[in-house]
Amino acid sequence: MNDVTALEALKQALRRLPGVGPKSASRMAYHLLERDREGARTIAQALTNAIDRIGHCKRCNNLSETDVCTICSSPRRDHSLLCIVETPSDLMSLDQSGVFNGVYFVLMGRLSPLDGIGPDEIGIPRLEALLDEGTIKEVVLATNLTVEGEATAHYIGELVRARGIRATRIAYGVPIGGELEYTDRHTLARALAGRREA
Amino acid sequence: MNDVTALEALKQALRRLPGVGPKSASRMAYHLLERDREGARTIAQALTNAIDRIGHCKRCNNLSETDVCTICSSPRRDHSLLCIVETPSDLMSLDQSGVFNGVYFVLMGRLSPLDGIGPDEIGIPRLEALLDEGTIKEVVLATNLTVEGEATAHYIGELVRARGIRATRIAYGVPIGGELEYTDRHTLARALAGRREA
Repeated sequence: MNDVTALEALKQALRRLPGVGPKSASRMAYHLLERDREGARTIAQALTNAIDRIGHCKRCNNLSETDVCTICSSPRRDHSLLCIVETPSDLMSLDQSGVFNGVYFVLMGRLSPLDGIGPDEIGIPRLEALLDEGTIKEVVLATNLTVEGEATAHYIGELVRARGIRATRIAYGVPIGGELEYTDRHTLARALAGRREA
Repeated sequence: MNDVTALEALKQALRRLPGVGPKSASRMAYHLLERDREGARTIAQALTNAIDRIGHCKRCNNLSETDVCTICSSPRRDHSLLCIVETPSDLMSLDQSGVFNGVYFVLMGRLSPLDGIGPDEIGIPRLEALLDEGTIKEVVLATNLTVEGEATAHYIGELVRARGIRATRIAYGVPIGGELEYTDRHTLARALAGRREA
């Protein structure tokens, strides 16, 4: 079917979306072309608009349309409390919980020497400059509970404590509503290790 | 997070893709912005290009970049054999099987009176004009085995036979490699009803 090269190109392009294989890409392409051409145009515009306008906040490195994001520029935030996360989506999840009123620093990754991701790649020099400003009193390490996430938390914790700043790690354990029977052993191990007086 | 309206717009737009809910849309948006901005640009261009260039073949109604698609304009195809399908993806699946060398007619749907989809909406007048040309000797009905698909096949079958043209229905039954134990009862019922001399 030589005459549908634009269709083939669309299917190929859609496969660049995470979690989209050949079957889904094909289904998406036909859906948009047969039933939602306006939707296709909307998606194209939203994509172009997003990559043109969204950059990174100069302070926290989060995705932002302005030089300094709304969180970093908010006077209602506690700027002495800094939470370190791996990604913008981690930041959004934490912030939506509504209990954290400090500011953030987004690593945009985690230390992974085997993949060539060292301190420079996750913005450590910028984080150190931030710590040296003298306003931060506590750093909450909220990297993921993976080998790399733990290593990253450990590495940053050292930097923080070396400056006489308090470093804390968020709690990991059995999630609320989680049943012990269905909780994986790593989480259970962490929950036991992190036990507190009842 | 007021400063990421372009991000919110992107997440909303991605939800127009079939099978993409809020979580997936969010994951896709972050993935593209953090790790594959070139991919985002590629998808946007492929979408715009596809909707601008892909229309419908004047004969078979399939998606095509040219007035008459390659299948309809091919001299190596048997133009006396016409296969009726519901969608372009059905056409592609059948054609990729490699056993059908005729031409197609794509309904872009199926009869569904409750949804206001009557003969005009699925191109029946055009199909009748095609049948009246006199070249078609057999019409293969390959609509789906749903209530609507069956009704559509029945409706078109009547039109075809009224013109003295042969109407056939593709076989439905247990798929090759399918085990009876795991085959649904509708398929089994159809397989039994369609049994032939061994």
